[in-house]
Amino acid sequence: MGLAPYVYPGAIHTRFHHALGAMYIAMQAIDTLRSKGHEITAEEEEALCIAIVLHDIGHGPFSHALENSIVKNVPHEHISMLIMNVLNREFNGRLSMAIAIFRNEYPKKFLHQLISSQLDMDRLDYLTRDSFFTGVSEGVISIDRILKMLNVANDELVVDEKGIYSVEKFIVARRLMYWQVYLHKTVLAAENQLINILKRARELAQSGEDLFATHCFKNFLTHNYSEKDFVENPDLVSQFCRLDDYDIFASIKEWSDHSDPVLSHLAKGMVNRNLYKIKLRAQPFEESELKGFRDHLSSKYKISGELQKYFIFTGKIENSAYTTRQENINILYKNGEVKDIASASDNLSISALSEAVVKHYLSVDSYCFR
Amino acid sequence: MGLAPYVYPGAIHTRFHHALGAMYIAMQAIDTLRSKGHEITAEEEEALCIAIVLHDIGHGPFSHALENSIVKNVPHEHISMLIMNVLNREFNGRLSMAIAIFRNEYPKKFLHQLISSQLDMDRLDYLTRDSFFTGVSEGVISIDRILKMLNVANDELVVDEKGIYSVEKFIVARRLMYWQVYLHKTVLAAENQLINILKRARELAQSGEDLFATHCFKNFLTHNYSEKDFVENPDLVSQFCRLDDYDIFASIKEWSDHSDPVLSHLAKGMVNRNLYKIKLRAQPFEESELKGFRDHLSSKYKISGELQKYFIFTGKIENSAYTTRQENINILYKNGEVKDIASASDNLSISALSEAVVKHYLSVDSYCFR
Amino acid sequence: MGLAPYVYPGAIHTRFHHALGAMYIAMQAIDTLRSKGHEITAEEEEALCIAIVLHDIGHGPFSHALENSIVKNVPHEHISMLIMNVLNREFNGRLSMAIAIFRNEYPKKFLHQLISSQLDMDRLDYLTRDSFFTGVSEGVISIDRILKMLNVANDELVVDEKGIYSVEKFIVARRLMYWQVYLHKTVLAAENQLINILKRARELAQSGEDLFATHCFKNFLTHNYSEKDFVENPDLVSQFCRLDDYDIFASIKEWSDHSDPVLSHLAKGMVNRNLYKIKLRAQPFEESELKGFRDHLSSKYKISGELQKYFIFTGKIENSAYTTRQENINILYKNGEVKDIASASDNLSISALSEAVVKHYLSVDSYCFR
Amino acid sequence: MGLAPYVYPGAIHTRFHHALGAMYIAMQAIDTLRSKGHEITAEEEEALCIAIVLHDIGHGPFSHALENSIVKNVPHEHISMLIMNVLNREFNGRLSMAIAIFRNEYPKKFLHQLISSQLDMDRLDYLTRDSFFTGVSEGVISIDRILKMLNVANDELVVDEKGIYSVEKFIVARRLMYWQVYLHKTVLAAENQLINILKRARELAQSGEDLFATHCFKNFLTHNYSEKDFVENPDLVSQFCRLDDYDIFASIKEWSDHSDPVLSHLAKGMVNRNLYKIKLRAQPFEESELKGFRDHLSSKYKISGELQKYFIFTGKIENSAYTTRQENINILYKNGEVKDIASASDNLSISALSEAVVKHYLSVDSYCFR
Repeated sequence: MGLAPYVYPGAIHTRFHHALGAMYIAMQAIDTLRSKGHEITAEEEEALCIAIVLHDIGHGPFSHALENSIVKNVPHEHISMLIMNVLNREFNGRLSMAIAIFRNEYPKKFLHQLISSQLDMDRLDYLTRDSFFTGVSEGVISIDRILKMLNVANDELVVDEKGIYSVEKFIVARRLMYWQVYLHKTVLAAENQLINILKRARELAQSGEDLFATHCFKNFLTHNYSEKDFVENPDLVSQFCRLDDYDIFASIKEWSDHSDPVLSHLAKGMVNRNLYKIKLRAQPFEESELKGFRDHLSSKYKISGELQKYFIFTGKIENSAYTTRQENINILYKNGEVKDIASASDNLSISALSEAVVKHYLSVDSYCFR
Repeated sequence: MGLAPYVYPGAIHTRFHHALGAMYIAMQAIDTLRSKGHEITAEEEEALCIAIVLHDIGHGPFSHALENSIVKNVPHEHISMLIMNVLNREFNGRLSMAIAIFRNEYPKKFLHQLISSQLDMDRLDYLTRDSFFTGVSEGVISIDRILKMLNVANDELVVDEKGIYSVEKFIVARRLMYWQVYLHKTVLAAENQLINILKRARELAQSGEDLFATHCFKNFLTHNYSEKDFVENPDLVSQFCRLDDYDIFASIKEWSDHSDPVLSHLAKGMVNRNLYKIKLRAQPFEESELKGFRDHLSSKYKISGELQKYFIFTGKIENSAYTTRQENINILYKNGEVKDIASASDNLSISALSEAVVKHYLSVDSYCFR
Repeated sequence: MGLAPYVYPGAIHTRFHHALGAMYIAMQAIDTLRSKGHEITAEEEEALCIAIVLHDIGHGPFSHALENSIVKNVPHEHISMLIMNVLNREFNGRLSMAIAIFRNEYPKKFLHQLISSQLDMDRLDYLTRDSFFTGVSEGVISIDRILKMLNVANDELVVDEKGIYSVEKFIVARRLMYWQVYLHKTVLAAENQLINILKRARELAQSGEDLFATHCFKNFLTHNYSEKDFVENPDLVSQFCRLDDYDIFASIKEWSDHSDPVLSHLAKGMVNRNLYKIKLRAQPFEESELKGFRDHLSSKYKISGELQKYFIFTGKIENSAYTTRQENINILYKNGEVKDIASASDNLSISALSEAVVKHYLSVDSYCFR
Repeated sequence: MGLAPYVYPGAIHTRFHHALGAMYIAMQAIDTLRSKGHEITAEEEEALCIAIVLHDIGHGPFSHALENSIVKNVPHEHISMLIMNVLNREFNGRLSMAIAIFRNEYPKKFLHQLISSQLDMDRLDYLTRDSFFTGVSEGVISIDRILKMLNVANDELVVDEKGIYSVEKFIVARRLMYWQVYLHKTVLAAENQLINILKRARELAQSGEDLFATHCFKNFLTHNYSEKDFVENPDLVSQFCRLDDYDIFASIKEWSDHSDPVLSHLAKGMVNRNLYKIKLRAQPFEESELKGFRDHLSSKYKISGELQKYFIFTGKIENSAYTTRQENINILYKNGEVKDIASASDNLSISALSEAVVKHYLSVDSYCFR
């Protein structure tokens, strides 16, 4: 859940829970599909379970929040792949089919869609889990029913006609969870604060400053590794795997006493929950609106130029409940016809939901107004 | 839940549960409103609780399903009023304020809105309760949060801006519960079957046929009481209050051996779950589409003319998630502005949801195709 | 739950729910046992499911409460057997194995123990279900874990050593549910009231008095059928099957206006929740303690002699958490040893719990003190 | 939950959750006691809430597991007191009443018993919370009912007679949670491993070895602070407060590469879940039983003398469901009599439960048998 516990203190469930949960519901999906006459062999079942339990293993500490902060330009899926390759060698090729499914190179395409599509096991699990642990019941979905309604048509994962309302509900629930939880403005503030702490730490580390950090973490702070480095150097993958929230947060706590005023200020804010203040709105922010804050930073705190980026900045967030850019969620009618949910639903304007909603934000540190 | 247990066997919760539940959440709403500075006196609290706990007391057996079957043209709210009046006399006027609130004649209008509006305690309780007992989690709403977000502006019940997503979710949930549960085609079939059994029993009783029934039930079968009769004859109210599902169902079981072939056929169908088959669609059904069934009824079962109405008929159902014909659900912004949810929600097309969806159905007895 | 809803209004779940639930957990038990290497064929699985789903089918209305009131001296298990025999004929012998298991005549004894023993699926389901619907969490048991710990040793159902605490908890929970729910004094009062209403109605019916009742119910009121009658007359079984709570309660409501003062008084009490008052204690009640009440009944209400039994009486209830009179609950140790839980548990004195606790009660009608 | 997540991965709830939960149920207890006529002023309510929310604040990382490892011979309650004193100064004396209640120096003794007794809010919350997050439903207690049954007699917290079964259940549940969770042998292994890692780190740190650690953690590793130091040096309290699981675990991860073979071996075991193997039994272990292991350690790994204590050792654990050494749980009868639950319960032998059960264990590192 990245930084969501800053807002929802109950939401401290882990990636381990999610991986087990996603695998568990994949096994239920398999039962359903088999009962509807679709063959899934024991080998395919094992491969699918492996692929799902490992689908997120390439995520570093704080998941999405720090993607691009610890390692730039290497998507977590690629690291997942590298880790699966290592495991595949250790297990003498037993993960080969799992890897093929994960990469969508396996003939039965619907197996891949169980891992990655707009109605995959990942989403079913995280919506259910996150709404439970945050207490945001807007995100409750009818997971048991959706699983029972899964089917396959033309090698595509589809949903039986009777499940159409459950899918509508799933799309609405996902949209609401984005606004209420994942893109909550305080969560956004905490994520930005964490990202900027890492950015500053990296600047200092690379300019030769000594920073408290475990040796693996220090390695990533002082180098800008590329995907090529990961591919060529298995030890780097192994070091990356050793990183977790402990490395990051122990450092941030220690850095709150660092001599660099930017790093220590941001780190202290993280520890004491003194985060950026965020303002959200539909229109982008103009540079002119930031001027007052910038002047205050310069005059009162002598912070100017490049350094201001750690204290004031703008950005945007986007929320697509359902997108037509990815593969559709398809509904299978009793007469065998298959239709995109956006056109199948006669009532709720799913197509309306399929337009991304963009919001712009302004993020300011407490220095800006104190 | 009327006849919903024919589809959702867990949904056997009672009106008593619902009345207590609605009163309980009304008390929570009162706490919230008081904490936001709106005065509600101890007398008003008691009156509101009385009004809510009694709001449905005028319902007869099987609630909505038999409204107009046992007593025609007397809405259950009017009978609730008559019962409250009786109680008010028994309690020496202690229900006067409750009655005023119930009739919307009390100065603080928002108290009435807690009982009857598009976001009243009745709906909050029944959605939560019905989704729980049916297991249809599409109907789960964030009831705790909605209650905490209630507020009053200009003597109107409103929802604080922060609760906007919870209200959206509530509207969507209500729409889905209608399609999945309240208007489920088998529920519809069972309700029509029950209504037609009563209609036939009444015909027979009024033509002098002897029918097994408790004496109170028999009284209502053999007479067509009007609202005037209820007002003038307190004993009639009292007899109505004695009726419950036991009276109806014990009779239906007994009638399944009755000599009238229509009554016994329908009653047997009810007992053995051999219900009308329902076909739903967007377009109305033409008389010509029924001809085949009618011919079969006449030729094979010698059922023709007027009697066919018990074996084949059409109808329509309607589902409005949110209607502009009733008072709006209003959102209160931090700046004091109040807006209808339909225009306040920038994302989900609530206005789209506010159009009623109509479906037409054809209902045929098993005789029609066997 | 018999009359428990008089105390726990949520506890209106049905025998249908329980039968499905018991079958469901039996299927889970089968999965566990198979995973531990015990063969259960597909035929045995079906047979077990049939036997469990039908194990209580011979219960009449209000289950245990009216056993011996509607039909005397015919245990419900025998009626279950008769019904299964009827079904077996209808299904051309497909229930033969189920019947053998039910009667404990099937070679694999542990299958019968899943249906009937001190740790059977029946108990696991009803404890879980009843504690849920009453809200009495003292009855919560670790059902998932108990199911996972089931095993078979020497053709006996046993529990793996690791499950010992869960079994202890199950025994304690069952004891507490008896005191808090099944033997709650108001439940006891309502059951006695119902039994006495039936007793009085039967007396009147058999002395030629006309009583409102469905024809099946009337048949059982006016005759004293023996087990032989049931065996010889299949139509009697069929009539018994038609009886349910609707028959009984519609009659009781109607009888509250009956001309017999005993019947109408007791029936009114049942409808208006004016039940016997119960006093519980460890020592039996002496006849001398009842004298004052008896005198009051005679002098004020002219009720004397035999009729007093409807207004004042004593009785006793018994609660054995664990009994050594039935087959033991056995624990299987890792070394293969099998021990009775009463000696296996080193901590909680299960043997202490295995002594039946007896309480005596005095039950008096409101006439006795008004 | 200390190290329990090694066995129950869901049990990662935090002390923050527990503190809020305990305060929440204390507020419910206050409502109940007030409704029974016991005066609790608004000041007392605030004080009680403060005392409860802070009752565990003196716990260091990993709670009980590391008590005596980070700071020796200073009970966490004393540190809680020191922290409350600091806060009391910051808040100009507003915590004085809370401190008096916490120290049992406030006239209304029952307020202290809500914080610390055999039926305090702490236990009610942790049993409920821990059984929920571990999934061990043996620990479920009827918390709502116990809270409603609380009362005060002679300035003592008591339980109304009707709650006697709920208290019995609470005692049994607590006993079972100890065996199933808190004293689970793998939890015990992990705790011992953690304690020994800290012990070794401290030895090394104090002999001048350089160890990776945040500066606060290093301070506690290199010094043996006494309670006197804490009292005299407020900065020490503040440093202690900065410690959390991040400091400990980041170090343990780093130490798994340390040059000291004992430290790195134990730390690696902690990280890779290669923990001590534990054998539990009623009888103490004899030194002679350890000889084979000791010989193996010396001959194969050259580990002998003092250092062996990190690889093989014995200990004992104790579980008292109910103890007569502390204040009793008292039951208040309708006639005003007050009795200890151990004598009040006529059925379950609570007195039997009040004897502590002791188990002895042998703990061996994998080196001992590989």
